[in-house]
Amino acid sequence: MNSKYRRHTAREATGLPPGTLIHIGERKEEEVVLTLIDYNQEGFTEKRLASVEESLAFKDSPGVTWLNVDGLHDVDLLGKIGEHFGIHHLVLEDILNTEQRPKIEIAERSVFLTLKMLSKSSAAAGIETEQVSVVLGDHFVISFQEKEGDLFDPIRNRIREGKGRIRRMGPDYLAYSLIDAITDHYFVLLEDLGEQIAALEERLVGNPDHETLRSIHGLKRELINLRRSVWPLREIISALHRDESSLLSDGIDPYLRDLYDHTIQVIDSVENYRDLIAGMVELYMSSMSNRMNEVMKVLTIIATIFIPLTFIAGIYGMNFNPEASPLNMPELDWPFGYLGALGVMAVCAAGMIVYFKRKKWL
Amino acid sequence: MNSKYRRHTAREATGLPPGTLIHIGERKEEEVVLTLIDYNQEGFTEKRLASVEESLAFKDSPGVTWLNVDGLHDVDLLGKIGEHFGIHHLVLEDILNTEQRPKIEIAERSVFLTLKMLSKSSAAAGIETEQVSVVLGDHFVISFQEKEGDLFDPIRNRIREGKGRIRRMGPDYLAYSLIDAITDHYFVLLEDLGEQIAALEERLVGNPDHETLRSIHGLKRELINLRRSVWPLREIISALHRDESSLLSDGIDPYLRDLYDHTIQVIDSVENYRDLIAGMVELYMSSMSNRMNEVMKVLTIIATIFIPLTFIAGIYGMNFNPEASPLNMPELDWPFGYLGALGVMAVCAAGMIVYFKRKKWL
Amino acid sequence: MNSKYRRHTAREATGLPPGTLIHIGERKEEEVVLTLIDYNQEGFTEKRLASVEESLAFKDSPGVTWLNVDGLHDVDLLGKIGEHFGIHHLVLEDILNTEQRPKIEIAERSVFLTLKMLSKSSAAAGIETEQVSVVLGDHFVISFQEKEGDLFDPIRNRIREGKGRIRRMGPDYLAYSLIDAITDHYFVLLEDLGEQIAALEERLVGNPDHETLRSIHGLKRELINLRRSVWPLREIISALHRDESSLLSDGIDPYLRDLYDHTIQVIDSVENYRDLIAGMVELYMSSMSNRMNEVMKVLTIIATIFIPLTFIAGIYGMNFNPEASPLNMPELDWPFGYLGALGVMAVCAAGMIVYFKRKKWL
Amino acid sequence: MNSKYRRHTAREATGLPPGTLIHIGERKEEEVVLTLIDYNQEGFTEKRLASVEESLAFKDSPGVTWLNVDGLHDVDLLGKIGEHFGIHHLVLEDILNTEQRPKIEIAERSVFLTLKMLSKSSAAAGIETEQVSVVLGDHFVISFQEKEGDLFDPIRNRIREGKGRIRRMGPDYLAYSLIDAITDHYFVLLEDLGEQIAALEERLVGNPDHETLRSIHGLKRELINLRRSVWPLREIISALHRDESSLLSDGIDPYLRDLYDHTIQVIDSVENYRDLIAGMVELYMSSMSNRMNEVMKVLTIIATIFIPLTFIAGIYGMNFNPEASPLNMPELDWPFGYLGALGVMAVCAAGMIVYFKRKKWL
Amino acid sequence: MNSKYRRHTAREATGLPPGTLIHIGERKEEEVVLTLIDYNQEGFTEKRLASVEESLAFKDSPGVTWLNVDGLHDVDLLGKIGEHFGIHHLVLEDILNTEQRPKIEIAERSVFLTLKMLSKSSAAAGIETEQVSVVLGDHFVISFQEKEGDLFDPIRNRIREGKGRIRRMGPDYLAYSLIDAITDHYFVLLEDLGEQIAALEERLVGNPDHETLRSIHGLKRELINLRRSVWPLREIISALHRDESSLLSDGIDPYLRDLYDHTIQVIDSVENYRDLIAGMVELYMSSMSNRMNEVMKVLTIIATIFIPLTFIAGIYGMNFNPEASPLNMPELDWPFGYLGALGVMAVCAAGMIVYFKRKKWL
Repeated sequence: MNSKYRRHTAREATGLPPGTLIHIGERKEEEVVLTLIDYNQEGFTEKRLASVEESLAFKDSPGVTWLNVDGLHDVDLLGKIGEHFGIHHLVLEDILNTEQRPKIEIAERSVFLTLKMLSKSSAAAGIETEQVSVVLGDHFVISFQEKEGDLFDPIRNRIREGKGRIRRMGPDYLAYSLIDAITDHYFVLLEDLGEQIAALEERLVGNPDHETLRSIHGLKRELINLRRSVWPLREIISALHRDESSLLSDGIDPYLRDLYDHTIQVIDSVENYRDLIAGMVELYMSSMSNRMNEVMKVLTIIATIFIPLTFIAGIYGMNFNPEASPLNMPELDWPFGYLGALGVMAVCAAGMIVYFKRKKWL
Repeated sequence: MNSKYRRHTAREATGLPPGTLIHIGERKEEEVVLTLIDYNQEGFTEKRLASVEESLAFKDSPGVTWLNVDGLHDVDLLGKIGEHFGIHHLVLEDILNTEQRPKIEIAERSVFLTLKMLSKSSAAAGIETEQVSVVLGDHFVISFQEKEGDLFDPIRNRIREGKGRIRRMGPDYLAYSLIDAITDHYFVLLEDLGEQIAALEERLVGNPDHETLRSIHGLKRELINLRRSVWPLREIISALHRDESSLLSDGIDPYLRDLYDHTIQVIDSVENYRDLIAGMVELYMSSMSNRMNEVMKVLTIIATIFIPLTFIAGIYGMNFNPEASPLNMPELDWPFGYLGALGVMAVCAAGMIVYFKRKKWL
Repeated sequence: MNSKYRRHTAREATGLPPGTLIHIGERKEEEVVLTLIDYNQEGFTEKRLASVEESLAFKDSPGVTWLNVDGLHDVDLLGKIGEHFGIHHLVLEDILNTEQRPKIEIAERSVFLTLKMLSKSSAAAGIETEQVSVVLGDHFVISFQEKEGDLFDPIRNRIREGKGRIRRMGPDYLAYSLIDAITDHYFVLLEDLGEQIAALEERLVGNPDHETLRSIHGLKRELINLRRSVWPLREIISALHRDESSLLSDGIDPYLRDLYDHTIQVIDSVENYRDLIAGMVELYMSSMSNRMNEVMKVLTIIATIFIPLTFIAGIYGMNFNPEASPLNMPELDWPFGYLGALGVMAVCAAGMIVYFKRKKWL
Repeated sequence: MNSKYRRHTAREATGLPPGTLIHIGERKEEEVVLTLIDYNQEGFTEKRLASVEESLAFKDSPGVTWLNVDGLHDVDLLGKIGEHFGIHHLVLEDILNTEQRPKIEIAERSVFLTLKMLSKSSAAAGIETEQVSVVLGDHFVISFQEKEGDLFDPIRNRIREGKGRIRRMGPDYLAYSLIDAITDHYFVLLEDLGEQIAALEERLVGNPDHETLRSIHGLKRELINLRRSVWPLREIISALHRDESSLLSDGIDPYLRDLYDHTIQVIDSVENYRDLIAGMVELYMSSMSNRMNEVMKVLTIIATIFIPLTFIAGIYGMNFNPEASPLNMPELDWPFGYLGALGVMAVCAAGMIVYFKRKKWL
Repeated sequence: MNSKYRRHTAREATGLPPGTLIHIGERKEEEVVLTLIDYNQEGFTEKRLASVEESLAFKDSPGVTWLNVDGLHDVDLLGKIGEHFGIHHLVLEDILNTEQRPKIEIAERSVFLTLKMLSKSSAAAGIETEQVSVVLGDHFVISFQEKEGDLFDPIRNRIREGKGRIRRMGPDYLAYSLIDAITDHYFVLLEDLGEQIAALEERLVGNPDHETLRSIHGLKRELINLRRSVWPLREIISALHRDESSLLSDGIDPYLRDLYDHTIQVIDSVENYRDLIAGMVELYMSSMSNRMNEVMKVLTIIATIFIPLTFIAGIYGMNFNPEASPLNMPELDWPFGYLGALGVMAVCAAGMIVYFKRKKWL
């Protein structure tokens, strides 16, 4: 195979029996990284696993076991994890399909969530989307990421240092913290989009060109993208909130409500940005037609001033023979003929200028 | 009859008593093909039937009986199938009316679904729509297609080879597999549309013309078409999911939920594509008015530079008689008259050019 | 009274006590036609009634009594019918008000429906709207039409010939058949609109003018009209379906569901047509601005090629005196002066043409 | 105080404790008019009251007591009415605030409604809005109007003459009649708007100008206004209908349903008018750009025909010296030079005309 | 640190454990001001507190205790208040995050609300947003403002003077009064926006320019802002109304309903303003294209009149040699040649003028 990265497409997946594990997304050759943290109020154990089997020792530990999987391309490994932790094969299929819409799957003894982690490496770059899946079980949480990242580092630190409530609470709080970490990033993105909108508005006031419109549409695309990731989130958290299963303790309720409010706020901002951008397109269109108006005015002013003058000059450039008849262009022989002609021209031009001044074109 | 294919239209069907079997759609002279697969965990029988009556032997077999009907134009045959398998005459009417909106009909001992199979023979071709109906009964599934196709071949292969879960599960899983096969094709179509949108966006950035807009509208039409087929699907699968009848076993639930999520994802993508296309129309309109602006600028620049110059040349082309009076065009006799006039022209032109540079028109 | 037809308007009806019978719509002098069919599984009686009283004999017959009233302008007659068959005076008011929105009124022992019959006498003509009201009672159905028409003839024939189920079923099936006959006509109309849309799309591709836009807007109006008649239908049939009264037998359920699906399909098509038409307006606007662009390009090309040439000609038309100074227009005396000037002009023109070719304006 | 009429604004009302009676609206110095009708099936008493106290005598009469108050500016009087009839001070506040949105307030022993009476004194005038409040109590109805008017005269007459059902029915029917009188006026307004729309459409077909667009927008404003008054009405009547209180007898149900249908019809028409108006804006915009196209075509045709001709004339106006060289403008001396030049011009012009004919610009 | 004011942004807050108190918004160095009013029907105590601890004495007083906090930047102080009054740490986080969307949090023994106070210092200034949070407890109300203001002064005065109902009612009425004071300000803002819209409409009728459109968009932004603050309010008050907790007495119900109606009215007005503004953009666009039309007409009229005339003059400026042939420009020697040429020109011009008059361009 020539290219290192290969993408399975929907076209290839068609026809396979439902539940067949196939990784839809970029394929990478790197190793899948498994890290496990097991913690309770007293302490924590953290280790990097060489194989899935190592995690089994922790599965029935009294504390909370958090298994983090970085990399989705090792389908067999995922199959094994699914087997060990009792994850339905359709859920595994969803974890692998990175073009999955964010969704929640609530079963009796586990909750499965898949979300989109959105990030931007630089201001000029587009939004990068990474799928993060979270499986919440009886005593464990498994998180799946497409590639290694520092997204969950603050949570790891809090566990290590015993800061905040995390060590005192159960796996539901851990799952909540993971989701919260992802949604927090949306606010960063929104702030960034807000700044871009402000910058574009300044360009709109200044000297907009077709490039400006293209930037506006770039923003629009990013908003559509963001919206696609965020809208389902609302239903997901709302479903989580409504869920009565024993996996979610009562103490988690205010946190979920808080999360829900954050989601609403993100959606709200996205919708407001859409409104703002619609207005910006209008402003751009108007400034375009304004400029056209200005171009037309310049042409019209120059043309309407000089065309009549040129006509007058044309008249006295005619070669009618004054000798054939005294009626033929007698002005040519008048002593003040030339100056008179120039005078008439000046009066014409002045009249036009006064007319344009009145029309407020000048 | 001259034409081989004939289409009954709504106009012709008006006035007939409800429940009259009439095939609305293209009429073909080909034979209707009946294929039957009867399977259970142990094995399977597959045969091509010469008449409906042959299927009766399998009707009460302990396994799952799948009768596939290719071709809808033989109204009598369909009437017979309906009679044998207890299908309501209104349902038969729906199967025959290929302009039917996708729908579900849940009766006590059978579930009837009609869906749209969408396909595209080539990139340039439009979307072809074929109606596929599925009747799920107690121990059997009947599928109706407008013409022979390879749509269900992968499922047949899975049955033959005993791959996946299909042989272990009931007729509900078979019905689900059929629907899943159809919805899987929507993703292929969406991918294709996505590529078309990307191609059009590139044309928009490059050199769009009226043809581009026409392509955009072609896409819009396809989306309207797709949407028409997909929107009802959501309600259908949701109704199927809610259905408490004994026809659907509990084990089918996660599969239906999965199917539902796929449908939502298709709808989501369609809506996003619509948003994108709306933005593309705006971009096109703006690039059109941009081009107009450019045309106008070229005209204005040329005209406003040369019209004054031509006027000056016109002045010295006048024939006022210098002999009649020293006031008449004395410049003509100045030694540097000609060069002076050219100089004035050059200054005029330069002034205009500077003005345009300042306006950023050049 | 001068005019044969007179229309009561809302303005005139204002201030009357609610429930006052007043016919809003065109008034006609023709006789109101009463026809009655009484049928059961065994046979049927059909007669044209001279007075309402004649119908009383059939009111308590064991079969189904169908009274059809053509013409609404005889308010007294309608009052009598209302009295005989126990129709609420507000319902009578609705029957008479032909500008009524389609509605349903479910009372304990009767169901009242008012619908819009839409028809088109010719392709060029607009949609004609006729109000049809149906009252379903214990053993009878009364239908009211604004004028005599052949709308219900197929149903009459089915009763006469005993075709289909109609003779075997109750008054609810008759009422259903009447509604079905009306909704079937909507499909004819939709087909007609679809053809008009296709024709307009071809005109859009060819040579659209302001007339085309006017036709598009005519279509839009018809769609608004159609929508106005069809949207309420959904609620009406849905209400009928939900109704638990003894007037509707269980056997009627699949028919009503079928009817409901038809209504949804009509609504769906109307909405799709609206989408298509919105796209057509965009296409029209774009083709207009395209044409403007083309006009502007022709002007610009001609003007920018010839204006500089005319300027050059203007220069050598100046009358500076070569005798006054050798610097004054020495070119005039050059042997190749004229050809040189023509050459410069040719080069200028060629340059412009190359420039336009590059800009893809030519 | 200088001005006779004064308006309290929201700005002034801010900071007052809730429930403080303050009249928001125009203040008038005229007397408030109190009229009382007390009726039952046998007869009626009608009188103009000098003070609120006079009404107390009728409060416990067995019949229906209707107190009508014309004028809202006497806050003390209203306070007294509120006290006598047990109206909550917040309700009184709503009665006084004439910028109130239509609302309903259902308490245990009273129903309070506030509606907008819309009228138009002339076709050219805008819509005038008057607030009408109705309080329905156990045996009484109180109506409040901003100023004296003939709105309720038909109802008064029906009471006086014992026409219709009104004398036989309770206060709920009276309240219904009052609301019905108000909604009936909406139809008059709708008819008027319909006529305005028809007139504007004719102007659009003929010779639309910027004034036409302004009229369209005037209509739009009126529709927004109308909508604002009508939309809440639906909820109000629906709430009234749902209300189970003893104040509303069962017999009133069909009347309320009828009223509800009327409201839906008004809303429907308003929405349709909005659609029509949106289409009219499009038509206007298109006819504007059409006209621009036409202007541009005239310019282009004239310019592209004459500019080349002028250039040819310019060439033979050059002064190259034929004596200096035989190559210098030999055409000038050709016998058919002049006619030849004219001929070339004619051919040029004809070519252009043919070109324009082909382009269908002529 | 250089700058006195510093803003924590979302970017900085990312990664902190949920519930960490951090003030998002401008930081100020001023002291936080705590004022406490404790009142009952008999009297009241008012004092400015030096520390939170002082408030504890009042916490269990039989009357209503209202603690007002001006300034949110002292995070420790807020933490202490939360501890003393039993406020959840997530609620405190919301109070501190001034970019919070308005929300309500109903717990068993407390209700937490956060609202937006909108004000405008001057007509030219934009809308200033201040977050106001209200915590309603068993016997107390705590209000949090970002900075000292006179917003609640009228309520304080009513308590001091014992005006209205406030002293007779419980903490729920106090909380209601606070919310009412905030929503009352929205009406002031709406009035102001209404005036701005009216002013802009006048400018649209007069002489609109790009500046006008910018003002329209400014208004749009303000409406988006206002809407963002107001829409959640509806849900908040509706949730408060539905709440069955013991914190809200029955007597508060009509006040909440009234508040709800006010909110609906504000939302209604905002939506209407949006409609109006959409119409204004259309009017502006039309008046722009109207002006363009006018410019084009002037150009076309001047050009099409003078270009043919100039051509005629050009013809007689040609130098064909009459001596070479009598066919060469014999007109030059005609006695009425010159006058004839002028006459032809005049006829041409007059023809054009008549043409333009007919086209209604003049």
